Amino acid sequence: MKFLVNRDLLWLNLNNISRALSTKPPMPILTGIKIEARGNSLFLTASNNEISIQTEIRDKRRLQIEAEGVVVVPGKYFIEIVKKIEAKEIDISTFEDNIIKIIADRSLFSLNAFDKDNYPLISFNDSDVAITMDVLNLKQLIKKTTFAASLSESRVILTGISFTTEGRKMEVVATDSYRLAKKFMVFEKEYPDITAIIPSRSLDELNRIMDESESDVEIHFSPLKVLFKYKNVWFQSRLIDGKYPNTTTLIPTDFLISVKFNKNEMISAIERASLFTSFDSSNIVKLKINSDKTVEISSTNNEIGAVKEELIPLECSNLINFEIAFSSKYFLDALRVFDSTEVTIHFTGEIKPFIITGYYDVNLTQLILPVRIS
Amino acid sequence: MKFLVNRDLLWLNLNNISRALSTKPPMPILTGIKIEARGNSLFLTASNNEISIQTEIRDKRRLQIEAEGVVVVPGKYFIEIVKKIEAKEIDISTFEDNIIKIIADRSLFSLNAFDKDNYPLISFNDSDVAITMDVLNLKQLIKKTTFAASLSESRVILTGISFTTEGRKMEVVATDSYRLAKKFMVFEKEYPDITAIIPSRSLDELNRIMDESESDVEIHFSPLKVLFKYKNVWFQSRLIDGKYPNTTTLIPTDFLISVKFNKNEMISAIERASLFTSFDSSNIVKLKINSDKTVEISSTNNEIGAVKEELIPLECSNLINFEIAFSSKYFLDALRVFDSTEVTIHFTGEIKPFIITGYYDVNLTQLILPVRIS
Repeated sequence: MKFLVNRDLLWLNLNNISRALSTKPPMPILTGIKIEARGNSLFLTASNNEISIQTEIRDKRRLQIEAEGVVVVPGKYFIEIVKKIEAKEIDISTFEDNIIKIIADRSLFSLNAFDKDNYPLISFNDSDVAITMDVLNLKQLIKKTTFAASLSESRVILTGISFTTEGRKMEVVATDSYRLAKKFMVFEKEYPDITAIIPSRSLDELNRIMDESESDVEIHFSPLKVLFKYKNVWFQSRLIDGKYPNTTTLIPTDFLISVKFNKNEMISAIERASLFTSFDSSNIVKLKINSDKTVEISSTNNEIGAVKEELIPLECSNLINFEIAFSSKYFLDALRVFDSTEVTIHFTGEIKPFIITGYYDVNLTQLILPVRIS
Repeated sequence: MKFLVNRDLLWLNLNNISRALSTKPPMPILTGIKIEARGNSLFLTASNNEISIQTEIRDKRRLQIEAEGVVVVPGKYFIEIVKKIEAKEIDISTFEDNIIKIIADRSLFSLNAFDKDNYPLISFNDSDVAITMDVLNLKQLIKKTTFAASLSESRVILTGISFTTEGRKMEVVATDSYRLAKKFMVFEKEYPDITAIIPSRSLDELNRIMDESESDVEIHFSPLKVLFKYKNVWFQSRLIDGKYPNTTTLIPTDFLISVKFNKNEMISAIERASLFTSFDSSNIVKLKINSDKTVEISSTNNEIGAVKEELIPLECSNLINFEIAFSSKYFLDALRVFDSTEVTIHFTGEIKPFIITGYYDVNLTQLILPVRIS
C-alpha cells in the first residue's frame, strides 16, 4: 500500500472517525484504525462495540494512490502523528506488511501495525427504506432531546432515544423518568412504520461530526442497527433492544395556570436561586406565584443561607395562589435547548408534572416532574 | 456595615484575592473572605498558609460606604453570587451581626457569615528596603524560571525560587536538580544584600494577578516573608527557610560545540520525535550531529515504532560527531520560555549538562542534564 494525501484532508477525516475509537475496548484491535486504499479512494474505519464510522476520501487533487492495500494502525498514535505534522502532504506506505511508514517533509515515522486479518468485518448496509432529513433538523432534534435520557445503566432502555414513525409523522422521545423531552417532525411523504431506540451517546457523537452545513442525511433503520449517511461519512450505531415505555398519556393537556417568561431572565434567576443548592446535589428550588402576579423563586440551605429571586412574567393565564418545587438542574437543562426567547410554563397542579413550550420551538415539549415539599 | 459597590469592580477585586483562598485549609475560617468597610475604602482579604492577599477598593463613583464594619463571608459562595449577578450595583449589609444581606435588582441573598473574631490578624508590613521593578520585567522573570522548580516536597528548598541581590545585580535561580533556569537583572541603583527563597507556586499565583500593564511593583523582603505591592493589591508570601544550593559552578562556560536553531522548528521536531516517548513517561529523545552538519532527533519505542526528524541548523560552531540524549519535556519547557526566534544550544560533552541561550533573552540561561544512553 502506498499513497500521498493532503495533511488537512486526512486530519479532518481522522477527527470524524476518531469518535468511534474507544480507549479501552474489549478487543485491542479496535484501538486501531483500518486504512484501505482501493481504486481512487481511501477508506478510514473505526469501531467500538456501540458505533462504527467509515469515511471515504476521494479527491484527485489531494489524494494519490500509488498501490492499493489495507493496514490497521494504532489509532491514538496515528492521530497524534497527523496532528503534529505541519507539512502539506503526507506519504504513507507499508513496509514488510506490519510496519507503516509515514513521511512528511523531514520527518520519518515507522509505526508497528496490527495484524489486519484480526480486524472484524463491519458491514455498512443500506436498509430497504431510508428517511432523508436536513442536517440542521437532525442536529436540532438531537440537541433538544438527548440531554433528558438516563445516564444510569439500571434501566438500559432509558439510555436510548425512541424514534417512531407513523405515516408522515416521526416522534422522538427521551426520558430518565424524572423529566421528558419530546419532539415530533412531519415529513413531506409517508414512510413505513419504524420503531427504534438509538443510544443517546451515539446521537451525541453523531452530532459532533455533523457541521451546520446545508446537506441531507440519509437514515437507514435495520432491525439491529441504524446507519446515518452524511457527506462522505457513514455512521452506524447499534440499537437498544426492548420496548420503550408509552409516554403519550404522561403529557398533560389541561392546565391550571400558564405563565410566560423571558427565557434568559428565567435562566439567570434559576441559576442564582440554585447557587446554594447545587452543593448538596438536591438542586431543589421553589417557584411561587404571588397574588400580585409576581413570581418568586427561592431556595434555602440552613448552613449557607437563602436566596429569593423575583420575576415579572410576561403573561399569566389566570390568578391563583400556586407553589411548586423542582430540580433546578432539570429545569435549566430544558430551558437551555429552546430557541424561543419567550417560553411558557404550563402547570397542572402543585405535585403534578408541568410542561414547557416555546412559540418558535414547534412541536417541542419539555416535561418535568416536581418534588413534594413539606 | 453597609455599602453599595459597582458589580464589575467588586468582581475584579474578588478574582484577585481568590488566588489565596484554599478549598481545604487547615483552618475553616480561611475559606472565608474578610470584608472591611473603613473610611472611604473597602478592604478584601483572603489567606491560606502560604499566601495572603489584600485589595483596597477606593472609588468615589463606584463605592459608597454607608456604615463601617467588618464581616467574614464564605469565600466560595460569595464569589459565586457576585459572578452570577448581572445588576450594575450591589447593596451589601450586615444583619444581626452574623448574616450578610446582598441585594442586586430583584435578587436577595442572605448568607451566613463566620465569626469575624476568629479571623487571624494578618499584617502586611513594609520592609526597610523595597526593590522596585517594572511589572513586565517581573512577569518575565517568573515565567522564565518557576517552571524549572521542583514539584516534589522531598527537597522542599527546591520548590522555591532563589532571589539574591548583590550591589546592582539580582540573580534568580530555579532548579529541580535535573534542569536549571537562571536569570539575572541589573538595577539602576544598588540595593543591600538580599537572599530569599520564594515558593514557586506563590510566584505563579502572583503572575496570574498582574496584567501586562505598565506599572511598578514594590517588593518588600522581610526575614520570613515577602510582600509585593502592585496597584491596589498587596500580595504576601511566606519564604522557604534554609540555604539554597550554590549553582554557580554548575553552569559550564567552555563548550565543545554550539548549534543555532530556529526555535519553533526545533519545538515542532522535538514534539514529533517524542510522540511515542510521552506514553512511557521517560520522554527521552536522542540528538545527533551528523558529518554533513544536519541534526537528527530520534526516539524508538519497541512496542509502538520509531521517529526520526532531520533539522538543518542555522549555524554550527565546528564539526564533530556528537550524540546526546535528554528529556524532551525538560527541553521543550526550556525552549518555550524564550522570546528569541533563534536559540543556541551549547554542548560540553555527551554526558555533561548543556545550556540554551537566545540573543533576545538577555541574561537568561537554561541548563539541562542529559541522560546516559547505552
